[in-house]
Amino acid sequence: MEILEKIRACLREKGLSAIIIPSNDPHFGEYIPEHYALRAMVSGFTGSAGTLVVTLSKAALWTDSRYFEQAERELAGSSIELMKMKMPGVPSITSWISSELCDGDSVAIDGALFSVRERDSLKKDMPTLVLSVTGDIIGPLIENRPAVKYGPVAVMPEEIAGVPASSKRRQLSESLSSATDMSDACYFTQMCDEVAWLTNTRGNDIMYNPVFMSYCAVTEDKTVLFVNKGCVSPENERVLASQGIVLENYESIASYLGRFRKVVAALSRMSVSLYDKLVSEGIEVVDDPVPQGSVAMMKAVKNDVELEGFRKACHNDSIAWIRFLKYIDDNFRKGTLDEYALSEILQEIRAGVSHDYVGESFSPIVAYGANAALPHYEPEKDSSSQVLPDGFLLIDTGAQFIYGTTDTTRTLLLGDVPYEWKLDYALVLKGMVDLSMAVFPKGTRGAQLDILARGPIMTTGKMYMHGTGHGIGHYLNVHEGPQSIRIEDNPTPLLPGMVTSNEPAVYVPGKYGIRIENTVSCIAADSQGFGEFIRFDTLNHVPIELGFIKENSGLRGIFSDVEWKWLTDYNMMVYEQAASDLSLEERAWYERKYLI
Amino acid sequence: MEILEKIRACLREKGLSAIIIPSNDPHFGEYIPEHYALRAMVSGFTGSAGTLVVTLSKAALWTDSRYFEQAERELAGSSIELMKMKMPGVPSITSWISSELCDGDSVAIDGALFSVRERDSLKKDMPTLVLSVTGDIIGPLIENRPAVKYGPVAVMPEEIAGVPASSKRRQLSESLSSATDMSDACYFTQMCDEVAWLTNTRGNDIMYNPVFMSYCAVTEDKTVLFVNKGCVSPENERVLASQGIVLENYESIASYLGRFRKVVAALSRMSVSLYDKLVSEGIEVVDDPVPQGSVAMMKAVKNDVELEGFRKACHNDSIAWIRFLKYIDDNFRKGTLDEYALSEILQEIRAGVSHDYVGESFSPIVAYGANAALPHYEPEKDSSSQVLPDGFLLIDTGAQFIYGTTDTTRTLLLGDVPYEWKLDYALVLKGMVDLSMAVFPKGTRGAQLDILARGPIMTTGKMYMHGTGHGIGHYLNVHEGPQSIRIEDNPTPLLPGMVTSNEPAVYVPGKYGIRIENTVSCIAADSQGFGEFIRFDTLNHVPIELGFIKENSGLRGIFSDVEWKWLTDYNMMVYEQAASDLSLEERAWYERKYLI
Repeated sequence: MEILEKIRACLREKGLSAIIIPSNDPHFGEYIPEHYALRAMVSGFTGSAGTLVVTLSKAALWTDSRYFEQAERELAGSSIELMKMKMPGVPSITSWISSELCDGDSVAIDGALFSVRERDSLKKDMPTLVLSVTGDIIGPLIENRPAVKYGPVAVMPEEIAGVPASSKRRQLSESLSSATDMSDACYFTQMCDEVAWLTNTRGNDIMYNPVFMSYCAVTEDKTVLFVNKGCVSPENERVLASQGIVLENYESIASYLGRFRKVVAALSRMSVSLYDKLVSEGIEVVDDPVPQGSVAMMKAVKNDVELEGFRKACHNDSIAWIRFLKYIDDNFRKGTLDEYALSEILQEIRAGVSHDYVGESFSPIVAYGANAALPHYEPEKDSSSQVLPDGFLLIDTGAQFIYGTTDTTRTLLLGDVPYEWKLDYALVLKGMVDLSMAVFPKGTRGAQLDILARGPIMTTGKMYMHGTGHGIGHYLNVHEGPQSIRIEDNPTPLLPGMVTSNEPAVYVPGKYGIRIENTVSCIAADSQGFGEFIRFDTLNHVPIELGFIKENSGLRGIFSDVEWKWLTDYNMMVYEQAASDLSLEERAWYERKYLI
Repeated sequence: MEILEKIRACLREKGLSAIIIPSNDPHFGEYIPEHYALRAMVSGFTGSAGTLVVTLSKAALWTDSRYFEQAERELAGSSIELMKMKMPGVPSITSWISSELCDGDSVAIDGALFSVRERDSLKKDMPTLVLSVTGDIIGPLIENRPAVKYGPVAVMPEEIAGVPASSKRRQLSESLSSATDMSDACYFTQMCDEVAWLTNTRGNDIMYNPVFMSYCAVTEDKTVLFVNKGCVSPENERVLASQGIVLENYESIASYLGRFRKVVAALSRMSVSLYDKLVSEGIEVVDDPVPQGSVAMMKAVKNDVELEGFRKACHNDSIAWIRFLKYIDDNFRKGTLDEYALSEILQEIRAGVSHDYVGESFSPIVAYGANAALPHYEPEKDSSSQVLPDGFLLIDTGAQFIYGTTDTTRTLLLGDVPYEWKLDYALVLKGMVDLSMAVFPKGTRGAQLDILARGPIMTTGKMYMHGTGHGIGHYLNVHEGPQSIRIEDNPTPLLPGMVTSNEPAVYVPGKYGIRIENTVSCIAADSQGFGEFIRFDTLNHVPIELGFIKENSGLRGIFSDVEWKWLTDYNMMVYEQAASDLSLEERAWYERKYLI
């Protein structure tokens, strides 16, 4: 019996009419362990974002524009209908379910995989249906389901973290106590990156994200880390204890929280199952007084030591990128490079540059020609494209070093292309520069700056359908909140110490994609008595291709002398910072190609 | 007995402990008839924005930074304390009152001069005090209070309004009916500009704003205009009747509204006194379903005929400005010009250019040297400054023509100044150009574009403490909502047809002020399948001083060739549109000065 039929049999047996299978694990991160990839295992669609709904007679999968092609391919031949999110005429998940089911029918969700806020909005959007919170009813139906893997937990030294875990707990406790009554209460988070940041620990249970499966509860006098205890060495346990961090078993989180009068947690990232259990025991569960999450906000504002670590990581990556770009420049004319091989080569170069290299911070994007028009294209070993001496090659890749996370995109011109293509490159680059040069008053939100990056390319009638900037963790998740730079509003202001990407782009289907991405931190800017001003400091040092712009007065005329000086200064600064680690040949190549 | 003592005697007699005297009239407009200038009459402070509070022992006046100097001067010698709003350590009105009074004390407000929303927030901010809604207890204490003046009401022809009043009523009724049950209900507005727009009428009861004291009630089958009936000629009454507009006496508004089951109105601009009366009679008073006001939104999106009127008005003003600028250029070297005289000269020139000129759209700002550092400086006849051949001269002025309203600011360089001053001019100008050239998706709010105008000058650590753009009425109020371009968020998107100012600036106290202001409308821009894009079309045609920027490569280097072309194209386009109305000598002068 195929899996969908097994699910339907199970639903019938329990009197349920449908089930929603999300992409989440119980920690709501971007990447999830294989064990939790239920949606992929059931549907065959392996993209990172998607939601499957199975009713007694139908099945449908919702995903966003990044994955339309992949989903079409992977769902082909199945009975699962592809729902292209936000496209005209495509129903939302809840309106589709409502139209398929009868009033009073029950829809199942696994309470561990939905947040309290997600449940609230499902309820609101399906008022005529009953939402039934079940345990994991899909997992037991999967044959050969991968087990959860627990890797060792490492302690991040204070000289890398900058602030001892005990101070982080104190700061959190003080800020909570000033906002809400914390007597006989505890703060709770189930976001693995928040746990890692709060306890100065790192792990490798999740692909690309150096975190481990864990929960954390913070009381006035201690931090309780819920973890597979076997993964913490006795020595690390002693180090953690010296910071007031006590270990408890991963599974005991619910019973532990049950001791308190009150639990404070970000309800947008707290499991329905935990919440319901606590509430049923009479415990008051209240939303985090900081709308975006207290720990998320603390974590987002990097301290000076963390920023120094970012700089070291970016320096390592700078050397690796320069060698990699030279490798491409030396070899692309042969027409024998291929995307996947290139991504492997960059990995090797990185590993050679520094022993502190841990691995990639996300699945690398090396996208040649029309492949780059798919913003999240990832080359695969056996199906990646040849790179020919023609058109654009887009490379978006990042690394984890033990003191910082990097994320850089460059687009290379490999042969002559029509003027309009070069114009698009110049406009995307202008957007990147204009955002980099912005000065703004404290309190400014990303949505107020987005136009600087997005504006130039919009003059051609084109736009990129993704954000301009995401927060970046400190040897943590390459995508983190709470700040962002996007069209959509986000109440979090950009504050000094925050590290954010700056990545305008353009995608022309069937032809090319261009994205140029730097990583910037917010620092204080000069203000003549008008309150605090903020500007960006660029952290990553990877040269930017300017030659074909300089040669063409129309393209050059898009930039003011001030903007152009920013670009040539940047390429010079990258050179100066990297030179002592480069060979004479590498230096000569860099000077020829980028010091124009 | 001085007026404050009279007020206190009156408060004591009524058992009140304080009274708040605002700058409002019963129609909540920016300018108010002399009759309602109670705050000015009591305090002696004549600025347009300020709130006076009188307690049994003290008095204090709150005003914003525009008026600090003027208020200091006008309050000197009085017992009224000046409260500089938003300055460190200065209490808000409500916290000051709360600290001066005892729990349970009563604070009086004239219900006609406060909106329902203003009352709500006063109540919220002074929870320990009693808010006592009184009638006008100040007016009767004023000796020689000016009477209300009612001028004739004119009907705006359909060839100027573009849409008959009957259609406006229908459109409003349909939009309301789709949002709320309108059976036995009426829509109500007491904003004079909304009444004028809705009924295609204009008046002259208020300085600069071509409106008249009025209310309006809209039902499914008619529009009822509450006005001093003697001000409407029998002929106009017939024209109005043909549009389904019925006249009622200005004073009968409350009793008229009392007939309905329900009244829909924007509670942010509805008097407490009217609201309370209706509610006490059991009438349901509900807030306008359009957050910024249904009529305000309809009025803000100009129709094609209104936009054509704006263009005619701007053409007239273009000729007047060019003559005016030539007059200054011909005469400033003598050092005999003065600010006030210049403002009079522009008026004369305007009247000579077109019979359709009605008057100024706001009090003209002709500010020389350090005077321009006060953003709302207005020269007065006997105390205005000489204009010398040195530094900057700022001119911000606008006109009412019978088919459109103008608002333009130019800053002229009258002699050599330090590089930093010219740099500030160039950066303000760059901000104006960058906003003018913006392309953005439909749904974008002004706060998302503000950085384009404000960003360049912020690179010097300086900023302007006012918005970048305000809506402009069609032969109506030069300042109107609901859209704006400011740092502060405003939920109203910028929509095609909206007319808005674009006026970045910089003010250096004691030295100079620079502001460059154009008027722009939103129009459709090219989109390659990314939904609707919008860009700005510049309506006003007044040349911009570029010569000293072109001469200096550092200043010129602030602009890209694309931006510079926008500027030189603009000056050329202004010339081409104006040339046939200019004399040979004027043309030659223009060519020399602006076609560089």
